[in-house]
Amino acid sequence: MTSATASATHIMRCLRDEIRNGHLQPEDKLGSERILSERFSTSRVTIREALKKLESEGVVYRSNRRGWFVTSPRVKYDPSCPGFFMDYVAEQGFIPFSRLLSSELVPADSYLSELFEIPEGSDVACIERVRGADNRAVYVERIFLNRDLLPEIEQHDLTLSVSKVVKGEYGQEYAASDLDIRAATLSSQQAATLSAPANFTCLNIRRIVRNAQGRVFEVDFEAWRHDTVELSLSVIDTP
Amino acid sequence: MTSATASATHIMRCLRDEIRNGHLQPEDKLGSERILSERFSTSRVTIREALKKLESEGVVYRSNRRGWFVTSPRVKYDPSCPGFFMDYVAEQGFIPFSRLLSSELVPADSYLSELFEIPEGSDVACIERVRGADNRAVYVERIFLNRDLLPEIEQHDLTLSVSKVVKGEYGQEYAASDLDIRAATLSSQQAATLSAPANFTCLNIRRIVRNAQGRVFEVDFEAWRHDTVELSLSVIDTP
Repeated sequence: MTSATASATHIMRCLRDEIRNGHLQPEDKLGSERILSERFSTSRVTIREALKKLESEGVVYRSNRRGWFVTSPRVKYDPSCPGFFMDYVAEQGFIPFSRLLSSELVPADSYLSELFEIPEGSDVACIERVRGADNRAVYVERIFLNRDLLPEIEQHDLTLSVSKVVKGEYGQEYAASDLDIRAATLSSQQAATLSAPANFTCLNIRRIVRNAQGRVFEVDFEAWRHDTVELSLSVIDTP
Repeated sequence: MTSATASATHIMRCLRDEIRNGHLQPEDKLGSERILSERFSTSRVTIREALKKLESEGVVYRSNRRGWFVTSPRVKYDPSCPGFFMDYVAEQGFIPFSRLLSSELVPADSYLSELFEIPEGSDVACIERVRGADNRAVYVERIFLNRDLLPEIEQHDLTLSVSKVVKGEYGQEYAASDLDIRAATLSSQQAATLSAPANFTCLNIRRIVRNAQGRVFEVDFEAWRHDTVELSLSVIDTP
């Protein structure tokens, strides 16, 4: 389907349709910019404009020197009912992974000292993990744990699930969590971990977790590649 | 507080601290790049790097030719318990506004025809609104309404609340809503409506609303300026 000098909007619609109807599959390579410009009888500038817009929608992505590809389906994440990453990602048909990047004790700054109700400078357990689906890195996180309530938590293997250790070994309940979600850009270190371009758009999620007594025992900072996740929730309206 | 040739990270930390401790107030103008580079004994390149990073975090914003300013507090929006924009924004201490941009009948495409269970090409009511807080535009939305369930809904004033009309005049319940949330970039038209730069990052929210019988009577597409909103929700964990 071609047209005389197609507009970027028209090209986007055609490519979107071909992806929707399965003509183009996830991870398929698109034709080169030259081939696309011939097919749509338009300039490479217009082709690039259309591709960049589709990239910002997360429909296609660019791999350095290899060209343009169709994005894989997004992981659906329900912030109102989180569950375990390893479980809900597997239920969606992906192969999940979780890798521990670091585990250390860090001194509490004023923010953590206030939340955890511990003196500034006292040791807090801090782990960094990267998690993904089908070999694609999806998000990177820093988790801070209150050793006042979870003594020597860093001695346990926290690669797959912090909450299973917190519940099983320490008998703490995840009674209530407060989540804040913002769009931002990845730091250069986060971008490197997630194989993303510099300044790539991400969703930053901060989670503050309290036990049944209302004390904070965990604070998470997550940075999700924007093109690998869709927040998805159902709201039952109270009549 | 200056330092010999400060790094971008150091400059960001100083400016963030001054905003946090109230030294710099919302809508305050920052010093010019020249003045900041003298103050931190560094190059304007480094100053600009720090300011652009703070911009991507939504901490400062650039106003063409006028310089850099401190961003106003964000509207907090709880997707798990939406409520009325005009109400929750006012409760947060802002002055909310809502403006109708257009109201028309459009033919149902295949997507709407399937959702609304109506023939393709039949009339759907479509309104566009822009909403904001304290004179800042916050989001723009297109709302499609099923005239099969809401006959001649376009005859009512839908500027302030669709749901009050739907409930009050048609007796339809907002029984269940499905929300999808993604980061993306504003279209050029959306950017113009929201006074945002080209390709500005936004949160796209799609909402599909069903009545008590499970039929879809409303579909919304919202585009929120990323720097004016924070999604904020509390999760009570089921033991």
